[in-house]
Amino acid sequence: MKIFDESAAAAARSRQAELTKPPGSLGRLEELAIFMAGWQGRERPKIDRAQALVFAGNHGVTAQGVNPFPVEVTAQMVANFRNGGAAINQLCRAAGADLSVIPLELDRPTADFTQGMAMEVADLVTAIQTGKDAVDPEADVIILGEMGIGNSTVAAALAAATFGGTAEDWVGPGTGADDRIFANKIRAVNAGLKRHKGAATAASILGSFGGREQAAICGAVIRSRELGIPLILDGFICSAAAGVLLVNDANALDHCLIGHESAEPGHRRLIAVMKKSPVVTLDMRLGEGSGAAVALLILRAALECHNGMATFAEAGIG
Amino acid sequence: MKIFDESAAAAARSRQAELTKPPGSLGRLEELAIFMAGWQGRERPKIDRAQALVFAGNHGVTAQGVNPFPVEVTAQMVANFRNGGAAINQLCRAAGADLSVIPLELDRPTADFTQGMAMEVADLVTAIQTGKDAVDPEADVIILGEMGIGNSTVAAALAAATFGGTAEDWVGPGTGADDRIFANKIRAVNAGLKRHKGAATAASILGSFGGREQAAICGAVIRSRELGIPLILDGFICSAAAGVLLVNDANALDHCLIGHESAEPGHRRLIAVMKKSPVVTLDMRLGEGSGAAVALLILRAALECHNGMATFAEAGIG
Repeated sequence: MKIFDESAAAAARSRQAELTKPPGSLGRLEELAIFMAGWQGRERPKIDRAQALVFAGNHGVTAQGVNPFPVEVTAQMVANFRNGGAAINQLCRAAGADLSVIPLELDRPTADFTQGMAMEVADLVTAIQTGKDAVDPEADVIILGEMGIGNSTVAAALAAATFGGTAEDWVGPGTGADDRIFANKIRAVNAGLKRHKGAATAASILGSFGGREQAAICGAVIRSRELGIPLILDGFICSAAAGVLLVNDANALDHCLIGHESAEPGHRRLIAVMKKSPVVTLDMRLGEGSGAAVALLILRAALECHNGMATFAEAGIG
Repeated sequence: MKIFDESAAAAARSRQAELTKPPGSLGRLEELAIFMAGWQGRERPKIDRAQALVFAGNHGVTAQGVNPFPVEVTAQMVANFRNGGAAINQLCRAAGADLSVIPLELDRPTADFTQGMAMEVADLVTAIQTGKDAVDPEADVIILGEMGIGNSTVAAALAAATFGGTAEDWVGPGTGADDRIFANKIRAVNAGLKRHKGAATAASILGSFGGREQAAICGAVIRSRELGIPLILDGFICSAAAGVLLVNDANALDHCLIGHESAEPGHRRLIAVMKKSPVVTLDMRLGEGSGAAVALLILRAALECHNGMATFAEAGIG
């Protein structure tokens, strides 16, 4: 496993102190450049290839009336991604990321987690492997996103199972729940937590609640960690999925940034327990990797400054 | 004077409601697209030409020991801007903005505002006109920035004179004040506020405290307002300069965004009294227009989504 290169990070930190600006005055942009330097193992990190992976899945828990949209919308949105019509297409173009959309057996939803395990072990393994295989070892940075009708309910269950708390702590409006749907979400998550209260490992939590896209996100996070490729998580659903890995390994997400703080209320709580700081907060709550793609714009800007600025000595200042 | 086109904004708002995403789920990106639509007077706003204007000036108040850097650094940084070595050069390249750097009589600093008026009327008029003349009428959006050793002290004085409060409310570390310099800043601002307490119009406040780059910023804001060109202000110094215009006209900054919330502590207070919301918060405190340039990245992303996404009808969803 490739580890964070402290000496490259230190060299990048020294460089930042020599650039033509008051020390620290680029704030988060400096931190991002140093983070990238450490993970890429070079004083001057680069983004020649940014890979965007969007995983899509369907969820049996939609039988509990947890989403205003029919499950068919997942496949329709996958088609929209492929036709270039979704937000993530525009944002990947703006941020210079190559988008891959990976639907996971959309016509075979995971089972309803209020009634039993969401996934058999074989399905879980397959989904994780799909996520691992999707990672391009040549990528300089990876951004992750997801699509799946009902998956904010799955995310709330995963967050509660991983970090504790009640359904009320983690359930939010998602794509736009009215009072009745919101109550159904709470009821479904509480039922799931009761049924699966013994789940104590990342695999058992994922198997209990699903879904395939969450498992694939974990696979991509695991593989990029092995390769030392820095990664940007998106919002609530993506963060809850990756957060499951912290059950097994407190350092599993050291290479991950959280791109944005979603307007989905549970995300702020999730970011806090994950001890992360979002790059931007723009009241977005779309998923698809949209917040991660916006964060990639900031990350590129950080590297432009880091690599392109003159030092005080070069500029003859001081 | 061109005004905000409510019907273009309404058309943009309708379009946002039809794009393939839950309504409102792009958050601030939707608001930015609608803002641009209203000011540009078209349902689908564009940014073919983004103009970045960075004004530089020197300040007599540096005689009060308000900055750790010598005044020569202003001219040295202007040379650095022209050689492409500063943060703003990299950020303008990343954000697709054409940078113009406009030094204002750097070898003739404004007078020390603790001792008298910073500027004669003729100097003030010239500086405002320079700002007006710098605006390209063909620009689709303008971003503003500044450079001037000592100008965070000027900004604190302008903010206090415009919005009330004490020196302590507005003075911050700036480029990196130690305790002694910080105390000098407080003392200078208090002395200036006492001396110029009768200043009650935008012109008298600007003339009292300076500086030329602040006056030029006001000129650019006035001219872009006349032309209806949306504009992104940078951090504390840029916001304090433009804020002076609110004394004369409560709508003077309706066409302005504040690009970022600076780490300079007074900026948060300033943004609140100006009733604005920053686009990003990245703990930056550099000036030069750096935060405005980062915000331009977000603005472009917002328009990419607005103009490039498919509607539900186009995508055959729902």
